[in-house]
Amino acid sequence: METYAKIKSVTDAMTDEMIATRRDFHKYAEAGWFEMRTSSIIARKLTEMGVDEVLVGEQVCKKDARMGVAAEDVLEANYQRAVEQDGDPEFLPYTRGGMTGVIGIIRCGEGPTVAMRFDIDALGVIEEQEASHRPAAEGFVSINRGMMHACGHDGHATIGLGVAKTLMAIRDQLHGTVKLIFQPSEEGVRGAKSIVDNGHLDGVDFLIGAHVTGKSNPDDPAVVVPCSHGSLATAKYDIIFHGLAAHAGASPEKGKNVMLAVAAAITNLYAIPRNSGGMTRINVGTVRAGSGRNVIADEAVMEIELRGETTELNDYVVDYARNIVAGAAAMHGCTYEMKLMGAAQSMTSDAELGERIRRVCGEMGLPVSEIASSRNGGSEDFSYMMTRVQEQGGQATFMRVLTKTAAVAHNRRYDFDEAVLPNSVKIFCGTVYDIMK
Amino acid sequence: METYAKIKSVTDAMTDEMIATRRDFHKYAEAGWFEMRTSSIIARKLTEMGVDEVLVGEQVCKKDARMGVAAEDVLEANYQRAVEQDGDPEFLPYTRGGMTGVIGIIRCGEGPTVAMRFDIDALGVIEEQEASHRPAAEGFVSINRGMMHACGHDGHATIGLGVAKTLMAIRDQLHGTVKLIFQPSEEGVRGAKSIVDNGHLDGVDFLIGAHVTGKSNPDDPAVVVPCSHGSLATAKYDIIFHGLAAHAGASPEKGKNVMLAVAAAITNLYAIPRNSGGMTRINVGTVRAGSGRNVIADEAVMEIELRGETTELNDYVVDYARNIVAGAAAMHGCTYEMKLMGAAQSMTSDAELGERIRRVCGEMGLPVSEIASSRNGGSEDFSYMMTRVQEQGGQATFMRVLTKTAAVAHNRRYDFDEAVLPNSVKIFCGTVYDIMK
Amino acid sequence: METYAKIKSVTDAMTDEMIATRRDFHKYAEAGWFEMRTSSIIARKLTEMGVDEVLVGEQVCKKDARMGVAAEDVLEANYQRAVEQDGDPEFLPYTRGGMTGVIGIIRCGEGPTVAMRFDIDALGVIEEQEASHRPAAEGFVSINRGMMHACGHDGHATIGLGVAKTLMAIRDQLHGTVKLIFQPSEEGVRGAKSIVDNGHLDGVDFLIGAHVTGKSNPDDPAVVVPCSHGSLATAKYDIIFHGLAAHAGASPEKGKNVMLAVAAAITNLYAIPRNSGGMTRINVGTVRAGSGRNVIADEAVMEIELRGETTELNDYVVDYARNIVAGAAAMHGCTYEMKLMGAAQSMTSDAELGERIRRVCGEMGLPVSEIASSRNGGSEDFSYMMTRVQEQGGQATFMRVLTKTAAVAHNRRYDFDEAVLPNSVKIFCGTVYDIMK
Amino acid sequence: METYAKIKSVTDAMTDEMIATRRDFHKYAEAGWFEMRTSSIIARKLTEMGVDEVLVGEQVCKKDARMGVAAEDVLEANYQRAVEQDGDPEFLPYTRGGMTGVIGIIRCGEGPTVAMRFDIDALGVIEEQEASHRPAAEGFVSINRGMMHACGHDGHATIGLGVAKTLMAIRDQLHGTVKLIFQPSEEGVRGAKSIVDNGHLDGVDFLIGAHVTGKSNPDDPAVVVPCSHGSLATAKYDIIFHGLAAHAGASPEKGKNVMLAVAAAITNLYAIPRNSGGMTRINVGTVRAGSGRNVIADEAVMEIELRGETTELNDYVVDYARNIVAGAAAMHGCTYEMKLMGAAQSMTSDAELGERIRRVCGEMGLPVSEIASSRNGGSEDFSYMMTRVQEQGGQATFMRVLTKTAAVAHNRRYDFDEAVLPNSVKIFCGTVYDIMK
Repeated sequence: METYAKIKSVTDAMTDEMIATRRDFHKYAEAGWFEMRTSSIIARKLTEMGVDEVLVGEQVCKKDARMGVAAEDVLEANYQRAVEQDGDPEFLPYTRGGMTGVIGIIRCGEGPTVAMRFDIDALGVIEEQEASHRPAAEGFVSINRGMMHACGHDGHATIGLGVAKTLMAIRDQLHGTVKLIFQPSEEGVRGAKSIVDNGHLDGVDFLIGAHVTGKSNPDDPAVVVPCSHGSLATAKYDIIFHGLAAHAGASPEKGKNVMLAVAAAITNLYAIPRNSGGMTRINVGTVRAGSGRNVIADEAVMEIELRGETTELNDYVVDYARNIVAGAAAMHGCTYEMKLMGAAQSMTSDAELGERIRRVCGEMGLPVSEIASSRNGGSEDFSYMMTRVQEQGGQATFMRVLTKTAAVAHNRRYDFDEAVLPNSVKIFCGTVYDIMK
Repeated sequence: METYAKIKSVTDAMTDEMIATRRDFHKYAEAGWFEMRTSSIIARKLTEMGVDEVLVGEQVCKKDARMGVAAEDVLEANYQRAVEQDGDPEFLPYTRGGMTGVIGIIRCGEGPTVAMRFDIDALGVIEEQEASHRPAAEGFVSINRGMMHACGHDGHATIGLGVAKTLMAIRDQLHGTVKLIFQPSEEGVRGAKSIVDNGHLDGVDFLIGAHVTGKSNPDDPAVVVPCSHGSLATAKYDIIFHGLAAHAGASPEKGKNVMLAVAAAITNLYAIPRNSGGMTRINVGTVRAGSGRNVIADEAVMEIELRGETTELNDYVVDYARNIVAGAAAMHGCTYEMKLMGAAQSMTSDAELGERIRRVCGEMGLPVSEIASSRNGGSEDFSYMMTRVQEQGGQATFMRVLTKTAAVAHNRRYDFDEAVLPNSVKIFCGTVYDIMK
Repeated sequence: METYAKIKSVTDAMTDEMIATRRDFHKYAEAGWFEMRTSSIIARKLTEMGVDEVLVGEQVCKKDARMGVAAEDVLEANYQRAVEQDGDPEFLPYTRGGMTGVIGIIRCGEGPTVAMRFDIDALGVIEEQEASHRPAAEGFVSINRGMMHACGHDGHATIGLGVAKTLMAIRDQLHGTVKLIFQPSEEGVRGAKSIVDNGHLDGVDFLIGAHVTGKSNPDDPAVVVPCSHGSLATAKYDIIFHGLAAHAGASPEKGKNVMLAVAAAITNLYAIPRNSGGMTRINVGTVRAGSGRNVIADEAVMEIELRGETTELNDYVVDYARNIVAGAAAMHGCTYEMKLMGAAQSMTSDAELGERIRRVCGEMGLPVSEIASSRNGGSEDFSYMMTRVQEQGGQATFMRVLTKTAAVAHNRRYDFDEAVLPNSVKIFCGTVYDIMK
Repeated sequence: METYAKIKSVTDAMTDEMIATRRDFHKYAEAGWFEMRTSSIIARKLTEMGVDEVLVGEQVCKKDARMGVAAEDVLEANYQRAVEQDGDPEFLPYTRGGMTGVIGIIRCGEGPTVAMRFDIDALGVIEEQEASHRPAAEGFVSINRGMMHACGHDGHATIGLGVAKTLMAIRDQLHGTVKLIFQPSEEGVRGAKSIVDNGHLDGVDFLIGAHVTGKSNPDDPAVVVPCSHGSLATAKYDIIFHGLAAHAGASPEKGKNVMLAVAAAITNLYAIPRNSGGMTRINVGTVRAGSGRNVIADEAVMEIELRGETTELNDYVVDYARNIVAGAAAMHGCTYEMKLMGAAQSMTSDAELGERIRRVCGEMGLPVSEIASSRNGGSEDFSYMMTRVQEQGGQATFMRVLTKTAAVAHNRRYDFDEAVLPNSVKIFCGTVYDIMK
């Protein structure tokens, strides 16, 4: 119990620092694969704390496994802005070209390996500028127009740094290895898989993630729901059809008309049979095809999104969609590419780990929700990490850390009560201590 | 000129016999691949005339190259009827199973090979029974309900026999080889290719075919248009999709739904791009799919017809249609078969041969149309024979032998003025003599 | 408790009679709208029992509200067979033209109205003829080939007659009105709505239905699950497209091509968006379109089935499907009809009525399943009756009366343990007495 | 013959001036509805010549009948450029907002009305800058990047001014009314109809238009083909679908998905049946639909082009396309707009007027092509003017004025031999004189 007390006092002492950090991240919001300044600052701080090993650049995400990465020139423009916005000069160069993300490792001898994941990217949202929006009123509104921390990942990154600092303060009480994973590009579920593919989740015995979540009842004192489940499996593809242009009046038969391939693909994708195993979703969100009114269209790009209540259901839709896209192209003599732009699996937290969190919180005096596990209606690429750990026999959970919010997530007026920052650090650290003590 | 006179006198002398023969064929009308009685009688008559070689059964059509053949039990039922209707007992057995058609060969030493084609099948039409229809009034209306010579092939077969008899009468004036091809299954363009595939047009120097045709002006004395052109190339397919049945409510995802393949195929077939090279046509005439309202459909049959102004244009449509059918099946995990049920090419008669016919007719005192070549609006599988002969450097023509008709072809009231029979025999024989003298 | 004893003794005394009745119905199986002999015998028996009012013919089902009725000639052929199979001569004429079904009313003065529904139709199944199938071995296999009681409605009709007889025996203990509804055409969910539309469920306070159901554990002594829920709402349509025929080669533009309307309808029906409210199903089960390969198709018939987890979800699909069919026809200048061939709603039994049944069974010594309500995976048009009663503030339930079965329902080897007949009569009558005493 | 001599001498005398004018127009190329500087200079010159009436601004094109007009801000930007490029300050303001085009009227008392049309717009082509391209070498290459006179309309406008000046010189020899129509926006066939709709072709007895055309044989001395025929009828539409956005994962059923309407429209547009009356064309050139991958698409824009060998065939396609677009929208609960962006009819010059031109040229010593009428493979909105005049019983022709060209029309290296300028003026003026003398 002495260690619990220390965790709480250390954490409480750095509350102001955490708020400052969070607001700095909020002001310099960086969207997925652009978190260059953010990553450099995280690496700097971990290094200053004395964390044993700090991985950056290609050590974090497997380069070719990253999904939905912007074009080189866009990456470079974002890098130059990070330079201008005082990214850390030592670590920033490692992030060039979108090699963002940081992993800190604290080695405490023999014992279990406990990993935690903190996602760090902002969204493509234009933040509210009116004074009624606290970040605007208090001067930490995003200055990077079109990028905004509207989903609380500024908080997640801050919590991760807080956890590192508090654990460093109690490291002599710990036995085993701590991995602090600062993941880029969670939005669009683009980043986690490239970290898993680099092997960082291999050998992990316990994995904990969390998302700040608005309370349904603001007077509820609970600070955490220990588990969650039901996150949707998803795959996001860009589908590119290539055909052959021809004059539509003079020689239509000389073309390979991607417009016909597109139309066949759209209708038939939506017509993928319902699955009695559960919910599936298909959406062709955007199409851009053709170059001129009197030209047989020779190129088209479709952005599609597939989902399933489980990984299996999503796989069913993905496999069927592959057949449709291939068939639609073949029908009209076209070729195609299917580029995976983001993906997540379904996931279910381990109840045993959830019970441990509930007990630890009880011992620390932190109120826990009556709900053991809340349902995720969307998708989370933390699922890749959880699946890998569970496949190896490890335990994993994705917690809901509860707070008051100013608007729903992804809204331009989103903001949260920063009390969630120290609370979350305590929950993470108490649980890690309980595992590694 | 003496020979011309002999041709005319021999022919005129057998006019009544030809009319009787034509009316017998008309009364016992047999549709494509069912011309068993008809074939047996033709073979009998050629044999009796002393024609050097009479080919029947598998010697005529290449068995596996026949298109659009009915099921075995249907063939057998038609065979039994031919037996009952006094088909020739010697030759009838060769026709069993739809091996119809006859080829007569007259060998006259060294010289060119001249082939002529006479098609012999009836149509699937129910003949008019009212007395205002001459065949009914005069007792030779078809007694095979649902089969009728409504396109004059009873006349064509009769002309072929007349040509054989007249040429036998002048055979000492001829040098070379005469082939008289009595082709089955011209309707639906199903038979000619199987004769070509058996090699019967190889080495042919001259090829002549003819179709009885109603005069646009009944007072026009002309008896023949020497050439024709522009027949449409076509391919007729049955497309069968195979899928997998499943309960539509309980587990739709377990099926392979041919209904979706059918729908994709239909729309995309009609959407085959227009061709700047000329006219094309696509039709999905019939579809039968599925077994029950609440079952995922697992089998479908579509009857389609493709056409092109030229063989190349038809090939364009056929090739594109193959891609569409394959793609539509692939999209929904189904398999398919594409069965060729009939086919013809485009064709253009040789003007030189046409001029020869004009000259011969002039010498024989037979009036010839001012039109050198008339346009065929439909399809003719004589085109396969013509193409083969022309590819080898031979000359070929498809004549229009003119007559008065009681109704348009394929109509249940169709009939023609039998004066066309001797006229046609004279034109054929005069031309053959001119070539082989 | 004396009345309970009387119910039991009366019922037990007529067990052999009930078995004989059930086997008679089984032997002379009649499918939906053909239950003419069956109806006439039910009416005869109710009349002989002295039931106060026996409704037949157009008094039962509203003529124009019947769905999925066969053509006149088919109805007449079935009527003639019923005459031959000794249908009751007094009542049979009322059923001519498919006006089947019977309602018996027992009037017992003031008090609640309690309705019960017993469906009476057979399925379009060819019954197993082997001796291993008890009906074959014991001589009551269906002699009407292609019609079989493979879903236990022979039992339901028999139970209804048993309930009538037992209630007549205790009628002096009852206060109110009893309605015994013998419904035709439940298979394909075609009959119930036409009874509701005739007003027979108006003013009903309590409604009880039941379906014989195979026990999952044959040793389970339970005889009933008092409630059920979750039956799927459904609508079954025949969609007929009318176009205009034209020659596909000569003048395709003169046609109105239903083939194109069919293809557009199929794909787009399957593409009706998934609904976040729950499960929906769409199936185009069969299509028959077109008359010939070279003719623009001018008529098509599609059999489709729509389903939803709830009535609202089904309505969503139905409304969307209407738009699609109308749009598909309009696109190609065609007209269409959408004929409702069957329909059902979703339904949920009233737990209070279920508890009453549980209590009554307890008092009567009949074992009740631990399950309060079982889930219906399919569709039931009893739902129309239940919905009407619940809308008026009444209570309704659809019970599962448990038995051993020889095969799954709808299988050609289906049979059930006839002990379910007296058990069911006791449950119905005990509950009715409890309500009306 | 004296007048012919005068026409020739006046024209020859102004050849250098015409070349300068043509090069000025070429340098300041303005695309359709942007011909503001061009129009202002034409109006200035006509006024200076003393033409009786000079119509500008809304007097020329009917404002709402203009097709394919750019957005207001784009029009304004082009207007500002015209101001900067020294458009005529008196007339330029009339052209603001794309009210371009000029009509000059010369009144010569009683007599026939003779109209001539000269189109004045450039294309959206980036002109070649290399010195091997004469306009670049000689300093009159377009300085308005992305706009180029690559179809000779700079020449047409110049010829029109030359005709005006020459006719003014012989006006005392003329009887009747001359209308010189300087039409904007011929490219994309967007302008002519709005001039016709303003009534300017009503009462016209003779109408002459011309297009500079490369000679197939550069040594051919002929300067004109007097007639042309066969121009394709066409209609160009922008189709906008409006739906309703919804979250594709959370509530797809709440959207109205334009993506489905787009797909249905595309496939079914291409499936419009071929027409036995002649050639038709359909192209969906471009599609832009949807706003995000996980959003039900609520807006789509398609650019389509329809064509027919005749006005009737084009109308067939247009009418069918309307049904398809309406049906596709209706199927998915969407609304739509169909905006006509350009249109032309088919046209056939009057041979009698062609013969007059041939005779006049003979009298003037100008060599005329042996070809009486050349075939137009593309579309021309002069057809609207010709149709109107012919409907009223007038005569019209569209000449080919022959020249040497450096590349095919619409190519970035296009240029023509300026000798065509005086030649054309002589042909126009000689013919007008012959009519009005």
